[in-house]
Amino acid sequence: MILTVTLNTALDLTYGVPALVPHTSHRVGEMTERPGGKGVNVARVLRELGHEAVVTGFAGGATGAVLRELLAALPNHPADALVEVSGSTRRTVAVVDRATGDTTQLNEPGPHIGAHEWDAFLRTYRDLLGTADAVALCGSLPPGIHVGAYAELIRLARAAGVPALLDTSGEPLRRGIAARPDLVKPNADELAQLTGAREPLRATRDARRRGAHSVVASLGADGLLAVTPDGIWRAAPPTPVRGNPTGAGDSAVAGLLAGLVDGLDWPGRLARAVALATATVLAPTAGEFDPAAYAELLPRVTVERHAPAA
Amino acid sequence: MILTVTLNTALDLTYGVPALVPHTSHRVGEMTERPGGKGVNVARVLRELGHEAVVTGFAGGATGAVLRELLAALPNHPADALVEVSGSTRRTVAVVDRATGDTTQLNEPGPHIGAHEWDAFLRTYRDLLGTADAVALCGSLPPGIHVGAYAELIRLARAAGVPALLDTSGEPLRRGIAARPDLVKPNADELAQLTGAREPLRATRDARRRGAHSVVASLGADGLLAVTPDGIWRAAPPTPVRGNPTGAGDSAVAGLLAGLVDGLDWPGRLARAVALATATVLAPTAGEFDPAAYAELLPRVTVERHAPAA
Repeated sequence: MILTVTLNTALDLTYGVPALVPHTSHRVGEMTERPGGKGVNVARVLRELGHEAVVTGFAGGATGAVLRELLAALPNHPADALVEVSGSTRRTVAVVDRATGDTTQLNEPGPHIGAHEWDAFLRTYRDLLGTADAVALCGSLPPGIHVGAYAELIRLARAAGVPALLDTSGEPLRRGIAARPDLVKPNADELAQLTGAREPLRATRDARRRGAHSVVASLGADGLLAVTPDGIWRAAPPTPVRGNPTGAGDSAVAGLLAGLVDGLDWPGRLARAVALATATVLAPTAGEFDPAAYAELLPRVTVERHAPAA
Repeated sequence: MILTVTLNTALDLTYGVPALVPHTSHRVGEMTERPGGKGVNVARVLRELGHEAVVTGFAGGATGAVLRELLAALPNHPADALVEVSGSTRRTVAVVDRATGDTTQLNEPGPHIGAHEWDAFLRTYRDLLGTADAVALCGSLPPGIHVGAYAELIRLARAAGVPALLDTSGEPLRRGIAARPDLVKPNADELAQLTGAREPLRATRDARRRGAHSVVASLGADGLLAVTPDGIWRAAPPTPVRGNPTGAGDSAVAGLLAGLVDGLDWPGRLARAVALATATVLAPTAGEFDPAAYAELLPRVTVERHAPAA
């Protein structure tokens, strides 16, 4: 089983409008509601790939109840091990301009998590690690959780012998890397913020030096750059694609974890991750992937080994 | 008791952001949730004025449950006679730029109302008319409700001997006026859309000719223009004010109804309506009114009778 942790789950709302014009009033045309948060997205993709997946983290209030209902209603849903909290799960609102597809995002901060709630989560997390083959720690921290939370969760995973992947940003990423996770998956912005370096290879190497066993940087349409103990690889889709990149990073995380658990080598894991991310950009619904596109792309992803430099 | 009807109630969310920039991502700073919809706002103001008020209309789903909880939690709340429906009450999102106070509004369309749900509402409405001194019919129609719904509700009110005020727009307003309500309260835009005339007096007279017993047009910062069987009046605040006009129209409706039920003459009703609307613009929280400002403004509102013209 693969465990995904989403401390700040979200009820994701998508509003279709002809065009977003600030300081005017808009009638929303189409409205969709999805269970959201990075770890929830990762778990959904893992289920589609045929893996057992369990989501934990926090959910609360009316929005949390809706999130759990929507999750349970998915045809191929991950198991729900979310911990109930007294605050309300946040909403995110994606306002999509129908003409251009451009998206404006509004993210609520999330509920305040109390000390007893964090303790309850740690008990659940420890229990789940007992049967987990890998764990993904995903997304932002809700208010009230200490900034070293991911570092704490990484240490617990290591003590339990469970490989941990970290996908977050800012100070929680900085602290988390120092706790030596097996893998971090920053994007170019997160990497630059962490290391101060803009050049991808330099920044990715620098991130690894801070403590991560391996770093897989997502470079948007250019694919992935992996710096690992076994070597350095670049993986890219066969041709650039256009579409909605929402959730592509989460699909890449799912591909990396599934490949790890299935015992693939780095090129195999990276090919899966790039094919899934690309098939997510191509899918008509934000955050979902197109299985036919995935199957078609998988053998065509290019993975090149970087010549070892001095 | 004064009855207010809100067929498309809403859970009103307000998001504070530094500035809304289309096609970027925003962390929401402050978030507030209020029970909303025009008739709900009107009933809240009526309660503050000391009147018994009952809200009816539809509520459903998790959002409807939150709306009803928030309504019940108000210190001085109107009675809840909302009819439960299977669809979910809509949300509205007001995104407020913190620096300028400018608001961008996103309104979900609302749940689809089935024929049986409409019938259930009509039974509730008829029952409530039995003890109502006046009724306000407020806001947009949710999907599934026939465009002549307000006309039907006006005829039922007349049959029950209960004065009806209509505050809506577009085709529901056009059809509603033709059913001869006691009062309609369009704003300048609604009036222009209805009559094709931009000049306020001409447009207001034209609206009255379409069937309304009286028309009170709200002219924003210029106050109100009333065309009635007893004469024509203009009512205006003593000085123009700046602030958030959200809910000012609903406060004016509450003032007009309270004045009607209290047996005030037109100048008295209009003074109340203008003082309440102005005290709403001045209040720090959108949609609420400042009682001290109301008390101070009430004797200072100017109400001028229009000389009868040919």
